[in-house]
Amino acid sequence: MAGLFITFEGLDGSGKSTQLERVASNLERRGIDHIVTREPGGTPFADLLRELFLRREAAQVDGVVELMLVFASRRQHLIEVIEPAVAAGAVVLCDRFTDSTYAYQGGGRGVSRGVIAEADRLATSCRAPDRTLFFELSPEEAQRRRRGGAADRIDRESLAFYRQVHEAYDRRIAAEPERFRVIDATASIDDVARAVEAALGDLLRPLSQAAGA
Amino acid sequence: MAGLFITFEGLDGSGKSTQLERVASNLERRGIDHIVTREPGGTPFADLLRELFLRREAAQVDGVVELMLVFASRRQHLIEVIEPAVAAGAVVLCDRFTDSTYAYQGGGRGVSRGVIAEADRLATSCRAPDRTLFFELSPEEAQRRRRGGAADRIDRESLAFYRQVHEAYDRRIAAEPERFRVIDATASIDDVARAVEAALGDLLRPLSQAAGA
Repeated sequence: MAGLFITFEGLDGSGKSTQLERVASNLERRGIDHIVTREPGGTPFADLLRELFLRREAAQVDGVVELMLVFASRRQHLIEVIEPAVAAGAVVLCDRFTDSTYAYQGGGRGVSRGVIAEADRLATSCRAPDRTLFFELSPEEAQRRRRGGAADRIDRESLAFYRQVHEAYDRRIAAEPERFRVIDATASIDDVARAVEAALGDLLRPLSQAAGA
Repeated sequence: MAGLFITFEGLDGSGKSTQLERVASNLERRGIDHIVTREPGGTPFADLLRELFLRREAAQVDGVVELMLVFASRRQHLIEVIEPAVAAGAVVLCDRFTDSTYAYQGGGRGVSRGVIAEADRLATSCRAPDRTLFFELSPEEAQRRRRGGAADRIDRESLAFYRQVHEAYDRRIAAEPERFRVIDATASIDDVARAVEAALGDLLRPLSQAAGA
């Protein structure tokens, strides 16, 4: 039986990575085969690309060039890590995927959606996750969290950027409502974890039974 | 007045790089503004990509991933080096460009032409040189030259690869005969240089007059 490909999306500070680890622990406890991975990364090859992104300011890398590198890395990640695990029946929990590209490169940095879609088709044949959890948090609240509560002097430029990122996520959710589950990320960590469990229950329950848990 | 974008193509061993340097010396002597560049490369950014290509065996990089990196590098090369020089009125002499991708990744390694065309559209809007010199040499003769004359034990696998590369070049030339000039690369270096001069004369003569040479 094929496994599952589940992605975790949201603004920086939304708590998605913490929740991903919680889900992984649950799967571990129930004896369900799974892997945890993230973008950009997940392959040795990706380390070199990450180094490249870090140099992008100095190297004045063009937005479409950056987009092509993101999708080249994603394709390698899919071929080398994600698809083999799914084919072997595992649950793949991935921190960020193509929705992040639409949100950050698209909404945030203004690369056109048409160009992103072209690169996605070329690199992944528009591979979509089986389910995507979106951790909903306002740009203002996400910024407060990233600053550790010290929100008296708000960086307006950064806030404008994250508003565009958030709007781009909203468009993705509106376009594919059946794939997304929107989780209220303002609740306590335990309450969010319960919402996550409810949002994945229909997919994970059959696997629990198969694993005899 | 806009400059010119001229590319040099052919099998490894065809002598194209030597001839490119000859053309550059001629332009220098005549006081015609020009730059010499090559692919993959031409930007600081490209060095990192070259490093990546060198690791591709170890990293098992997929053919389409490699293609995306080649075109990402090409776009950066175009934006950073080629287009600004052409816009400033210079003659750009470039050792290999998109035709090499069709020949080596396409013909040689079997990446489909449709996928290459998609990547080309995304990265460069299918930017074509003003003229391309193809240095015609049989795969057998190119191999003899690369081996420094010791051709008694021919590597059949390598020869089959170069035959496919050569066929892919032939398809490019047949598709865009007005852009290509085919130069017989079996002649002496001086005779080839004269053929190159004849093949570029109509483009370079107006520039010579403008430069007062």
